[in-house]
Amino acid sequence: MNFRKVLALTGRMLIANGMLMIAPLCVSIIYKDGQILPFVYSILISFALGACGYAAKPKNSEIYAREGMIIVALTWVLFSVVGGLPFWFSKQIPSLVDCIFETASGFTTTGSTILTDVEAMSKSLLFWRSFTHWIGGMGVLVFVTAIISDKNSRTTHVMRAEMPGPKIGKLAAKWQFSIRILYAIYITLTIIEILLLLLGGMNIYDSLVHTFGTAGTGGFGIKNTSIGYYDSAYIDYVIGIFMLLFGVNFNIYYLILVKQFFHVKNNSELKLYLSIVAGASILIMMNITYIYGSPLKAFRYSFFQVSSIITTTGYATTDFCKWPMFSQMILLALMFVGGCAGSTGGGLKVIRISIMLKCTLNEVKRAVSPRSVLTVKNDGKPLESQVVQGVSMYLVVYAVIMVVSVLIVALDNFDMATTITSVITTLNNIGPGLASVGPAGNFSEFSVLSKLVLTFDMLAGRLELFPMLVLFTPLAWKKI
Amino acid sequence: MNFRKVLALTGRMLIANGMLMIAPLCVSIIYKDGQILPFVYSILISFALGACGYAAKPKNSEIYAREGMIIVALTWVLFSVVGGLPFWFSKQIPSLVDCIFETASGFTTTGSTILTDVEAMSKSLLFWRSFTHWIGGMGVLVFVTAIISDKNSRTTHVMRAEMPGPKIGKLAAKWQFSIRILYAIYITLTIIEILLLLLGGMNIYDSLVHTFGTAGTGGFGIKNTSIGYYDSAYIDYVIGIFMLLFGVNFNIYYLILVKQFFHVKNNSELKLYLSIVAGASILIMMNITYIYGSPLKAFRYSFFQVSSIITTTGYATTDFCKWPMFSQMILLALMFVGGCAGSTGGGLKVIRISIMLKCTLNEVKRAVSPRSVLTVKNDGKPLESQVVQGVSMYLVVYAVIMVVSVLIVALDNFDMATTITSVITTLNNIGPGLASVGPAGNFSEFSVLSKLVLTFDMLAGRLELFPMLVLFTPLAWKKI
Repeated sequence: MNFRKVLALTGRMLIANGMLMIAPLCVSIIYKDGQILPFVYSILISFALGACGYAAKPKNSEIYAREGMIIVALTWVLFSVVGGLPFWFSKQIPSLVDCIFETASGFTTTGSTILTDVEAMSKSLLFWRSFTHWIGGMGVLVFVTAIISDKNSRTTHVMRAEMPGPKIGKLAAKWQFSIRILYAIYITLTIIEILLLLLGGMNIYDSLVHTFGTAGTGGFGIKNTSIGYYDSAYIDYVIGIFMLLFGVNFNIYYLILVKQFFHVKNNSELKLYLSIVAGASILIMMNITYIYGSPLKAFRYSFFQVSSIITTTGYATTDFCKWPMFSQMILLALMFVGGCAGSTGGGLKVIRISIMLKCTLNEVKRAVSPRSVLTVKNDGKPLESQVVQGVSMYLVVYAVIMVVSVLIVALDNFDMATTITSVITTLNNIGPGLASVGPAGNFSEFSVLSKLVLTFDMLAGRLELFPMLVLFTPLAWKKI
Repeated sequence: MNFRKVLALTGRMLIANGMLMIAPLCVSIIYKDGQILPFVYSILISFALGACGYAAKPKNSEIYAREGMIIVALTWVLFSVVGGLPFWFSKQIPSLVDCIFETASGFTTTGSTILTDVEAMSKSLLFWRSFTHWIGGMGVLVFVTAIISDKNSRTTHVMRAEMPGPKIGKLAAKWQFSIRILYAIYITLTIIEILLLLLGGMNIYDSLVHTFGTAGTGGFGIKNTSIGYYDSAYIDYVIGIFMLLFGVNFNIYYLILVKQFFHVKNNSELKLYLSIVAGASILIMMNITYIYGSPLKAFRYSFFQVSSIITTTGYATTDFCKWPMFSQMILLALMFVGGCAGSTGGGLKVIRISIMLKCTLNEVKRAVSPRSVLTVKNDGKPLESQVVQGVSMYLVVYAVIMVVSVLIVALDNFDMATTITSVITTLNNIGPGLASVGPAGNFSEFSVLSKLVLTFDMLAGRLELFPMLVLFTPLAWKKI
């Protein structure tokens, strides 16, 4: 374990965190909402802590997988704590645990909130809250490395731990080259969405904040009724479609840029993703038409919600807890699916679901004729058994974390729907669950213990489980 | 696909089914409850259908895995249909789908019921209902083969498809020898429990019926309040301990008989099973002591319920839906665990949970040091990667079946707890779920579609998924 290198790198990240907080500081200055001091304090603390870590000059720059995991996990934990300081200094969120929960929810692009009245918050604080979505969407370490270029190629090891999805693409190989292109795509899509929202009559502040939430597939709103506040079909469709776009593997946009349309057309993950969205939207539309009078209006609500949940954004245009159970269960199933690998979305990822479904078919075929040789294919190419095993192991670890979390949260004695979906929604980085944590509810009533467990789940879900587990494994901290 | 052989074997099974129904016919004659004709009709139909199948003289007796799967699945489906006829002819269960549901629930040792007032049923019908548990516990094909000795060793292929748990033991090899011993153990334990219940003041009929339900880990009661009716600590503990005993791998008893205590003491599945029961009982006891006044009384209820749920029996001494959410969630988690492999219990089986937990630990270790070579061990011996992969694939297929079932059942628009636990409880062959399908509720309100799906789930759960999936795979029916 190379402690000094870990300290130096996380220190650098904290300094970056301080710099990022300059953005909401500016917002506070512009809107004169009286939150200048909380931000200044937080920035100074961030710099001070960062400098301490940075001062630990590493003797060597060797970074292995375990250091990579720990740096990632530690950075995300520290970002959640230090990033939550402005809320605490402002006294608008009095409990430190709540501040950490809210900030972790921001950076991990979950969007679950402990706020009971979001409209009562200062503008700069809400801006920071949504800005964390935008930063966290692409990965905080990736973000920082994109700004501060690091000549040490060893850090790619670190960033790989932050990338979502099983490792089957070739992106990792050309990572350092791709990162700029990916960010260019991310920023371009962000700007287009802002412009489209402005065109729809939304003011500049609201457009920015909601675009941040969409781009990171986070889902923090600034109105108590989320996107439902605007009650505009145009805005619903703009945000609905952009959520969907940000849930696509960013490699696809790269392939479009280099005109490799063939690979785009044959991308099985994209096909499955779009098929699920279409299928779920239509099924829910048929199920809720009786509520909204016309199939067209029902589709508007169903498409928005499907797009919001599958991409794990979590915006809402209506309280879907009032929909029939069939629609609710479709949404619950979509919570597990999540976005595509290499997108800003959370969840299990469409590619894993795709591999799982293919495995199921193979297992049935194997049961029919045990001697046949079967391989799981993706995009026409057979997958290594290691990848397939990785996916099923991921599911096993995921299930274990979920069961343990549900048991702890159950101590709070809420109803079953609240208890279970609060874990599902945080572990998959969605935001709202059902019942008390539905779109009309919030997470304020949970105990401190539950809030900490759910914060762990948000971080574990965003970092694809292992970095957070390694962080709490004594073995990983041993010197060798 | 050897159709004739499939027909001949399932035909023979149906004849056996007819013979088994002679037992409740005798009960009807003894108690004069007027159900002689329904049983006579059912027996005749069973014989007639059986004779038709039996008449299909197979040209060769080749049986491969696929024939094995289909014979098993088909036999269980036919047993559920034909075994349900007495209920239908008696008009005490007017709907044929309900009759099939109830009988499938019996043979699969699930114990979920569509009866709203079980005490209104005739004695012989209730006897048959519980007797199906006892037959199904060891496997209907195993049972039949134990009676009608078959010289064709090929049929071992068939019985293997009916055995619960991943194939890691050596039992299958000495199967034909073991089957007699296993049955001797099963019958001995059954007789001891009957005697102990008689000693506790229960009458002979009630003792028989409840022992059948315990031995098969089924859980059909004959009182509306299940075992709670007797309100006796002695009876609670006798049934509680015997449920636990029937959830143990029967190999363990064999090992005790041949005095191989060393292997018993080092059996990791047994250790984990007993640890889970002890841990869960104590945690629930602490959680519910405030309801029952004393820890001792609380332990009586918590131990009984833990034993009932983990062994997937489903008896109840109280309405645990009124317990705090923490206790309910522990029970929900236990629903997935199930009994040991090679027992009469359902669920995922303790051995699979054990392998899953070990895999989780290994994956975390692998994340810490990716180059280390790790194997999953069981009882000190490393497991083949094929077995480990089989376990994780099982979980994947299991999850797929669960999600699809929940979506269909959700069309009935019950609350979330009812919708989800009705699937969990049937797929794991437990019996009661939570909310409307809790111990004080029943399955009568579900639609025909949902009842059929839940029936499929019971059969799929009992046969460890694949035979039922193969039955509905067109590929399996093709001639080659």
